[in-house]
Amino acid sequence: MGLDAIKAGKRNESGIGLVVKALSERFGTRLQTGEAMRAQHAHTTTYIPAQLPDAVVFPENAADVQAIVALASEHKVPLIAFGTGSSLEGHINAPHGGISIDMGRMNRVIEVNASDFDCTVEPGITREELNIYLRDTGLFFPIDPGANASIGGMASTRASGTNAVRYGTMKDNVLALTAVTAGGKEIRTAHRARKSSTGYDLTRLFVGAEGTLGIITSITLKLQGIPETIAGGVCSFPTTADACNAVILTIQSGIPVARIELLDETQIRASNAYSGLSLPQQPTLFVEFHGNPETVALQSRQFAEIVAEYGGSAFRSTANLEERNQLWKARHNAYWAQKSLMPGAAIISTDVCVPISQLADCVEATREDIRVHGLLAPIVGHAGDGNFHVGLLFDDKDPADIARAEAFVARLNDRALSMDGTCTGEHGIGQGKMPFLENELGDALDLMRQIKRGLDPDNIFNPGKIFAM
Amino acid sequence: MGLDAIKAGKRNESGIGLVVKALSERFGTRLQTGEAMRAQHAHTTTYIPAQLPDAVVFPENAADVQAIVALASEHKVPLIAFGTGSSLEGHINAPHGGISIDMGRMNRVIEVNASDFDCTVEPGITREELNIYLRDTGLFFPIDPGANASIGGMASTRASGTNAVRYGTMKDNVLALTAVTAGGKEIRTAHRARKSSTGYDLTRLFVGAEGTLGIITSITLKLQGIPETIAGGVCSFPTTADACNAVILTIQSGIPVARIELLDETQIRASNAYSGLSLPQQPTLFVEFHGNPETVALQSRQFAEIVAEYGGSAFRSTANLEERNQLWKARHNAYWAQKSLMPGAAIISTDVCVPISQLADCVEATREDIRVHGLLAPIVGHAGDGNFHVGLLFDDKDPADIARAEAFVARLNDRALSMDGTCTGEHGIGQGKMPFLENELGDALDLMRQIKRGLDPDNIFNPGKIFAM
Repeated sequence: MGLDAIKAGKRNESGIGLVVKALSERFGTRLQTGEAMRAQHAHTTTYIPAQLPDAVVFPENAADVQAIVALASEHKVPLIAFGTGSSLEGHINAPHGGISIDMGRMNRVIEVNASDFDCTVEPGITREELNIYLRDTGLFFPIDPGANASIGGMASTRASGTNAVRYGTMKDNVLALTAVTAGGKEIRTAHRARKSSTGYDLTRLFVGAEGTLGIITSITLKLQGIPETIAGGVCSFPTTADACNAVILTIQSGIPVARIELLDETQIRASNAYSGLSLPQQPTLFVEFHGNPETVALQSRQFAEIVAEYGGSAFRSTANLEERNQLWKARHNAYWAQKSLMPGAAIISTDVCVPISQLADCVEATREDIRVHGLLAPIVGHAGDGNFHVGLLFDDKDPADIARAEAFVARLNDRALSMDGTCTGEHGIGQGKMPFLENELGDALDLMRQIKRGLDPDNIFNPGKIFAM
Repeated sequence: MGLDAIKAGKRNESGIGLVVKALSERFGTRLQTGEAMRAQHAHTTTYIPAQLPDAVVFPENAADVQAIVALASEHKVPLIAFGTGSSLEGHINAPHGGISIDMGRMNRVIEVNASDFDCTVEPGITREELNIYLRDTGLFFPIDPGANASIGGMASTRASGTNAVRYGTMKDNVLALTAVTAGGKEIRTAHRARKSSTGYDLTRLFVGAEGTLGIITSITLKLQGIPETIAGGVCSFPTTADACNAVILTIQSGIPVARIELLDETQIRASNAYSGLSLPQQPTLFVEFHGNPETVALQSRQFAEIVAEYGGSAFRSTANLEERNQLWKARHNAYWAQKSLMPGAAIISTDVCVPISQLADCVEATREDIRVHGLLAPIVGHAGDGNFHVGLLFDDKDPADIARAEAFVARLNDRALSMDGTCTGEHGIGQGKMPFLENELGDALDLMRQIKRGLDPDNIFNPGKIFAM
């Protein structure tokens, strides 16, 4: 975290002035400098203070992006790609000022190759928009980070979410992309073959690069057939450890669960109140199975046996769409439910991920830490991946409370690292996790810096993120 | 291809002399300069002429590798990592001379975390050695490129093979790795969490980098549970197009086939003779299913229906280990069977991969090309991935035959590219595919060069591979 370390950097005033003027000439009203618009493009679901860009530009195609990048390259002015602003670690802040590139108007589906289970989209389309578009094809894009994020943003943070335990993360689901790189050239990282050994994996390099290597202009995605049967359910456990152990055994048994989400009793209390559920106030798993009627029934039966083994409530699986929607809507609104526990409080959504065998230990030790320090901090998790989020509520006006929160986050990240885990399973580094990345990968960060210097020698793409140069 | 373009580069004679002397002092008999040993380390399963290193060194641990790299960095001398020498595109040639690092003595299993389905190994272990080691754990490492390659070599070429249709490629199965980078520092790209969003994906950058960014010293791999039931079988088709269309429909139907391999009638003729099979001399699929008895039976039944739809022979699936082993041994020996069709001939194993919907068209057009030009060129393919290999037999002493072979390969790669495919699904670029990579990715190669310059400023790691600097 290190809230106080996130300071505004040196600004290139004259360069910014020139670029804003030139963009204004080219883009007219598609270049905005009003404070409300700029504030909106630095405001995210985060505890990190907003740092406003100098202007916001709305490209409509790759040629627009090339013109923006060429100008910014010439004058060494920062460019920050903006999707929907749902990232959590200050990714879209402008610590050195510069231009926010709002990709919202580049939201077309370029092509769908249904017979190859792939599609190519512009980065500004959101995952919900894409899935509505795909509905008639019998295919869907499975990655679901909760928020209705843009595909470009999801690629850039290597997002995952509830379905990742079955379908993988953005790393596994981006086949190729195009991006405008320093100077303004547009490059293509790959074509549509399912696999390729063409030298360095540039696709995977841009996935997770948080907009620091170029501006993505199109993305080719793998799609999945909509399952014949989707069924899911809920079950409560005596303790969080029991719930975690049920998850561990489910994964180790190779049950191809599509979603398996942990909510501790504090989260259930929050979600009951916020989302109108009436679940027992106990550690709970939300589960979903995808397949045909037979395989889904088999998976449900196997899972129910595991639940019983750990003293869980009778597991009932339902294919009822309304029931399922209510459940997953509540899961997606977990963050807002957390907020409602302490109106006005700030919230840090932590993001550790550990090997599955360590999940129960890591969650239990974290709950003990929360208890000992008297914190209000519900837990939700993509438990099947070993990934969980603590929603730590704190008063961001109170230095003592900030310090307490920072110390908790540091202990949590150290704990995950000591278990061979990571400080971020899916949210990315942004500004908030820079010191933790340093702890986690040490000298490997030098390689990231060397790559950044090679591809973006003037440091114009989202400077001040991931690592200090 | 461009056989004549693969020339020896400029050699740093004095540097090489100094490094060989210093290595000899440190490593004693673990530094070898005899011609037979050097020739063995440049000799691979390839048509590309051998270019010998000046010496071969045998490190036994990461500290040895660090010492080698530090010396080579100081004197700007090329280092070529060597696994088992089964690569196909001249990856281990030494066009600028230098030191071959034989990783064969770094072949330990460092740890197995059975409860997390992962293990960490040294790069010199082969996939067969690893699977023998793992046998008692109930787990296995699924990637199987045919040859008993080293895990380090498989990572470095982003290998895949017969099982990739079900389990993915090395890109999907390496969780983390350590590598010694320029100057001699050892870095770690990630830890053991199943997913992570820690900045640039350095793991995926080293996977497929063909040893050009550093020397891998350990690899953490995902493992799979050994399936309860493995069953497989063979079926023949009237035409290659029928066989391909059966594959396409199998994939599009979402049948989770574990292996689905195409062998055309020329390959069947070769394999019948070489491997003692007695299959009908027709286009044939080798298929395997993994699961429990019920799911495997279901998959076999669904597949048999598709086979019938395309006029294939009655499909019979067997779990008999001996029958299966004979089949897959024959598949693995396809290359040697091809060679036996024309003793003394050289062979080019092409490697295009196209979107699955294009497979039948691409194979058919290629067979027509073979026919029109009167070539001897059996086809085998990881058809489920859209990846197939033409084993083109030619006389590498006859300039006209070389030219004919080169023209065929160029047409094939152009054909795949025109279908949104790639010139290499799994073999990598090495020296042999450099011009085709240029065609395929154009300006994106500049990014690869920028990365290479950043991480290996003196170009000591496997110079002359993937792209010209």
